[in-house]
Amino acid sequence: MAPDMQSLLDRISAAMQRRTDRGAVASYIPELGQVDPDQFAIAVATADGKLFHAGDALTRFSAQSITKVFTLAIALGRAGDQLWNRVGREPSGTAFNSIVQLEHERGRPRNPFVNAGAIVTTDELLAGREPKEALAEILGFIRAAAGDDDIHINKAVASSETRHGHRNFALANFLASFGNLKNTPEKTLGTYFHQCATEMTTVQLAKAGRFLIGADKGPSLVSQGRVRRLNALMLTCGHYDGSGEFAYRVGLPAKSGVGGGILAIVPGKASVAVWSPGLDHNGNSKLGTEAMERLAREMDWSVF
Amino acid sequence: MAPDMQSLLDRISAAMQRRTDRGAVASYIPELGQVDPDQFAIAVATADGKLFHAGDALTRFSAQSITKVFTLAIALGRAGDQLWNRVGREPSGTAFNSIVQLEHERGRPRNPFVNAGAIVTTDELLAGREPKEALAEILGFIRAAAGDDDIHINKAVASSETRHGHRNFALANFLASFGNLKNTPEKTLGTYFHQCATEMTTVQLAKAGRFLIGADKGPSLVSQGRVRRLNALMLTCGHYDGSGEFAYRVGLPAKSGVGGGILAIVPGKASVAVWSPGLDHNGNSKLGTEAMERLAREMDWSVF
Amino acid sequence: MAPDMQSLLDRISAAMQRRTDRGAVASYIPELGQVDPDQFAIAVATADGKLFHAGDALTRFSAQSITKVFTLAIALGRAGDQLWNRVGREPSGTAFNSIVQLEHERGRPRNPFVNAGAIVTTDELLAGREPKEALAEILGFIRAAAGDDDIHINKAVASSETRHGHRNFALANFLASFGNLKNTPEKTLGTYFHQCATEMTTVQLAKAGRFLIGADKGPSLVSQGRVRRLNALMLTCGHYDGSGEFAYRVGLPAKSGVGGGILAIVPGKASVAVWSPGLDHNGNSKLGTEAMERLAREMDWSVF
Amino acid sequence: MAPDMQSLLDRISAAMQRRTDRGAVASYIPELGQVDPDQFAIAVATADGKLFHAGDALTRFSAQSITKVFTLAIALGRAGDQLWNRVGREPSGTAFNSIVQLEHERGRPRNPFVNAGAIVTTDELLAGREPKEALAEILGFIRAAAGDDDIHINKAVASSETRHGHRNFALANFLASFGNLKNTPEKTLGTYFHQCATEMTTVQLAKAGRFLIGADKGPSLVSQGRVRRLNALMLTCGHYDGSGEFAYRVGLPAKSGVGGGILAIVPGKASVAVWSPGLDHNGNSKLGTEAMERLAREMDWSVF
Repeated sequence: MAPDMQSLLDRISAAMQRRTDRGAVASYIPELGQVDPDQFAIAVATADGKLFHAGDALTRFSAQSITKVFTLAIALGRAGDQLWNRVGREPSGTAFNSIVQLEHERGRPRNPFVNAGAIVTTDELLAGREPKEALAEILGFIRAAAGDDDIHINKAVASSETRHGHRNFALANFLASFGNLKNTPEKTLGTYFHQCATEMTTVQLAKAGRFLIGADKGPSLVSQGRVRRLNALMLTCGHYDGSGEFAYRVGLPAKSGVGGGILAIVPGKASVAVWSPGLDHNGNSKLGTEAMERLAREMDWSVF
Repeated sequence: MAPDMQSLLDRISAAMQRRTDRGAVASYIPELGQVDPDQFAIAVATADGKLFHAGDALTRFSAQSITKVFTLAIALGRAGDQLWNRVGREPSGTAFNSIVQLEHERGRPRNPFVNAGAIVTTDELLAGREPKEALAEILGFIRAAAGDDDIHINKAVASSETRHGHRNFALANFLASFGNLKNTPEKTLGTYFHQCATEMTTVQLAKAGRFLIGADKGPSLVSQGRVRRLNALMLTCGHYDGSGEFAYRVGLPAKSGVGGGILAIVPGKASVAVWSPGLDHNGNSKLGTEAMERLAREMDWSVF
Repeated sequence: MAPDMQSLLDRISAAMQRRTDRGAVASYIPELGQVDPDQFAIAVATADGKLFHAGDALTRFSAQSITKVFTLAIALGRAGDQLWNRVGREPSGTAFNSIVQLEHERGRPRNPFVNAGAIVTTDELLAGREPKEALAEILGFIRAAAGDDDIHINKAVASSETRHGHRNFALANFLASFGNLKNTPEKTLGTYFHQCATEMTTVQLAKAGRFLIGADKGPSLVSQGRVRRLNALMLTCGHYDGSGEFAYRVGLPAKSGVGGGILAIVPGKASVAVWSPGLDHNGNSKLGTEAMERLAREMDWSVF
Repeated sequence: MAPDMQSLLDRISAAMQRRTDRGAVASYIPELGQVDPDQFAIAVATADGKLFHAGDALTRFSAQSITKVFTLAIALGRAGDQLWNRVGREPSGTAFNSIVQLEHERGRPRNPFVNAGAIVTTDELLAGREPKEALAEILGFIRAAAGDDDIHINKAVASSETRHGHRNFALANFLASFGNLKNTPEKTLGTYFHQCATEMTTVQLAKAGRFLIGADKGPSLVSQGRVRRLNALMLTCGHYDGSGEFAYRVGLPAKSGVGGGILAIVPGKASVAVWSPGLDHNGNSKLGTEAMERLAREMDWSVF
C-alpha cells in the first residue's frame, strides 16, 4: 500500500533539511549566488487533483532551464515537426553549455534542453514577433498550466544574465554563423534570458507540470501524443550529461534548472517539483535528486 | 479497446514485407552480409503468458548487441554496483564503436551498451574463469529466460568477427592501456565475439525478454529494482546514438543489435521482439524500428 | 648561380596568369566575394634594398590575417612574454575559426594566428585605450615597416565583417566566458575587424615584411631575437591547418590571409609577397602557394 | 665570433649536471623506468667533419621515436610520395599517442612522427618482406649514417614494449579497421617496437644525423630536396604537441624520443644530439631542450 503522501513528504523534507552536504549554489550571476543554500521544498500535484507539499514550498526561486519544457511545448505547437529540422532529439554526452558538438554537427544542437537547443527553440517561438509578445505567450502558458497568475519574470535576474551571458552569446553567434538563427543573437537571447528568469514556488511548479501527466489528467494544453514525446525528451535529455544517471536512479522523466529546481512527471499519476539550490557537478540539484529518488522508491513510482 | 494482437501483428508484418526501402544489411563480416534482407518478423510475449508472432519469427538470426542486456544482468548479479566503477551510465552522443570519448574520459566507457562498455562488462563477467565457463553462464541465462534450450552460438560468426574485429581490438587494447581490462584483450574479445554470435529466433528473443517485464511477471531472474534499472539503461542507451530518437518515436526501453533484431519491453505488460536485417545510419534495424513504432501506437504502449 | 630575379618573377607571373584552376574567392562578405579572381601578383624586397615585382603588384587587396603578424609584433613589444599567458604557441590541428580546442583548453587559444588567438592579441594591444589609438599604432607600424604612408583601412570591409562576423563574435564571447578578454567583445572585435581590413599592394606588403628578414637587414622595428620567434610562429602556425604542408613544400616562414595574400620571409635574404584571390580548402591562396613554391625552388631558398 | 665549441659544451654539460629539476623518466616499461635520471650528454658533429661532445656521451640509451626520422627517410626512398596517401604532413595538436584525430580523420594519421603515423611508415617499409629484413635495412641505414656498425637493437626493451604496448596495439588495430595497414598489427608492431628499441650513444646519434645537414655535407643518403622536407617535418611535428614551443625557443628542426634523446639539425652547419632521461609533460627531454636552447643561442644557430 502506498504510504501517506503528506507524512512521506514531511519525512523527506526533514531529512533533507538536516543535510550538510548540499552541493554548490550557481554563482555565475550574483542574483543566483546569493540564494540561501539551506532551503528545501517538495510538492506533489496528483492526477486526481490533490496537492501536497513540505519545506519551503511557497518560496519563489528561479526556474531557469525548467522553462525550456514549456517553451518547447509552445514551439512544437507553433512549428510542429519543422522544429526538428533545426534541433535534434538525442542526448548530448557533453555539458549543457558545450559548443564542441555544435561545431562537429554544423550548428544543429543535439536537443532542445542543452543551452544551444533551447536558444533555437526560443528563436523559433519568436519568429515574426516582438520579445514582449513571445514572453507573454510563455508566461501565459505557464500560468494556465499552473492555474495561477501570480507567476512572474524577475527582470533583475534577466539583465544580470545578459551582462554575464558570454557563453550563451557565443552559442547564439555560433548558431547564427551556421544560419540556424532567425533573429539577431541579441533579440533571441534577450527573450531567452527573460524566459529563464521566470520565478515560481515549488507548489506552482508542481501544478504547472500537470499537463504532462497525460491520460487526460491535468489541464489539456497539448495532445496526449505530444505529452509522451515531451516526457521522452525529458527522460533522455532533461538532466544534461546526468540524464542517464537520473533515469537509472529515479526512473522518471524530469527537467532540472540551475536555480536548483527539478520538475518530474509520473505519467498518469502525478507531477512532482523539488527545489534545493545546491548543485552537483552536472549542474543538477543535489538534494533535489536525492529527494526525488527517495520519493520514487517509497511510492514505487517509475516508468520502468 | 486494444486491437486483437494476432491480427495487428499480421497487418504490421504484411506491411513490412511489402516495403522496398529496407536499409542496408551489416556487411563488416561475410556471415552477416549474406543474410537475405527481405525478411521480417515480430513476436510478443505478454505478461500473462501468451505468445503471438508473425512473419519469419521462427528463423534464427544473430542477436549481436542484444546479448549485452543479458550479460549486463549477469555481471550486475556478480559484481553489483562495483561494475559502475568501470563503466558509466550515460548516453554517449557518439557512434557505437567510437573511441573518442574513451580517450577524453580516460578509459571508462560511457555505458554498458556501446561496444567499449560491453567489452568491459564481458571482461568483468569473465574474471577468474575460462571463456567456456562464462559463455556457459550467458547461454544458460538466456535459455532460462527464454524457457528454451535450443539457443546456440554460431561459431563461424564468432571466428569471422575475430578475423575482422580490428575496431574492437582497438577498443579493448585502449581499455587495457588505461588499466580497465582484467583479462587479455584476446581472451575478453574471444568471449565477447562468441556472446555476440548467439543466435535466436524472434520468438525466442521475445520470450527471453520476459524477465524484464517486471512486476513479478515473467521468470524471476533479477530483482524488480534491477529490472527497472536495466530498462532505464535500455531506454537511454539501447539504440546507441539513436536512443533519443527511439524514445521519442516509440517510448519503450529497447536494445538493438546489428543483426537487425530489437528487443523492447512494455513494463508490466509485454516483451516484444522484432527482426529485419536492414539497418539505418545508426546501425539499428530500419523496419524493426518502424514496426515497433506502429505496434506501440496501436496498442497505446508507452512508458510515458 | 641564382637566376635573374626580374625575369624569374615575370615567368612565374605569366605562368600563373594562364592558370584556370584558381581556387575559390572568399565569399563570406560581399566585399571580398566581388574581387576578380583572375589576378596575380608577386613582389620581392631583398635584404640589400632591391625591389622586384610582376603581375598586378600595384593593386590593393585586403591583407586580412596577414596583419596578425604586425599586431603580434606590437603586442609582444607592449606586453612581452606576458602575452603567452593568454595564448599558446602551438599549431592547432584544426581550422582557423574552430572553437573546439578553445573549449577543451579552457579559453586559451593555441596560437596568435588562429582567429581566437589573434582576437586575444588585439585585445591585449587595446588594453587601456581606444580602438582609434590602437588602430593608429597598427597602421603606423605597418607604414613604417613598408616605408610608405599610403596604406589604409577599408572601412566598408570592416563594417561588412562586423555584420557577418557571427563566428568571430562566438569566439570572442567564448574567450570572455573564460575571462580571457579584457575589453568587451564588441570593442575588441571592432578593432580586430578594422585591423583585418587594412589594404595593401603586393609591393607594399613585400616591403612591410622586411623587418622580419633579420640579421640587421630591413627596418629595425623589433630585436633579432624577436624576429626569429615571429618567423618560428609563422612557420609552424602561419597557414592554419596547412602550415605543415607549406613548410614541407616551400620551407619558409609565411603568413597567409583570406584576401589571397601571403607574406613569406627568407631569413637574411628577402621578404616576398604574393597575391591571388582564389583559396584552397584551408583558406590559403592556391596560386600564391604554388608561386611561392616555384620561387623558393628556383632561388634555392629554404630555411632547411 | 662563435665561442669555442668544446668549452661551450663543457659549460652546458656542467650546468645541466648540477640541475635537480630533471623531469620524470618514462616508466611505461620497466627497462626505461630504471634508467638513472642523473645523466646528461651532448654531442655536435659539424659539417666540416669535426666532432665534439661532453657529459655521458658514450653511454647508450634507447633512441625510441628518434628512429622515426630514419625509417621515414627509408620509406620515402621506397614508396616516394605515395606514402602521403597514407599519412599527412600536419602538426597534430594532440598528444603523441592520441587516437581522437584518427577517428575524426578516418584512419589517416596527421604526420609520420605521432605514433600512429610512425606505425604506418613502418608498415609501408615492411611491405612484402619479413620484419628481419626491414629491421636490417633500418639498422643498416642508421649505421651507415653514423659511420659506425656498433649500433644495436635491445631485444629486452622491444619485448617489454610488446608486453606493455596496449595503446600502440589500439592504434594499429584502429588503422587496420580503416584499411590503412598492409600487414597484421602484430607484424607491424613487432617491427615498430624493435626499431624503437635501437640503442645509440649521444655521439653516435649526432653522427647519424649528419645526412640531414644538407648542402652536400655529411653522408649523401638522401637527396637535398628530401633533406629539406625531412627537416621541415621535424620542425613542425618533431616534438609532438610541443613542436611549436621548440621551434619558438630553439629554432631548429629536431626529433625527440621518450628515452630522453633529441636530434637537432643546423642546416648546412651541424648535427647535434643531446640526451637526458627526464621528460617534460609533452614527453620531450626537459634538460635536453634547455641545453639545445642554450647551445643554439650561444652559437647563434637558428633557421630563422
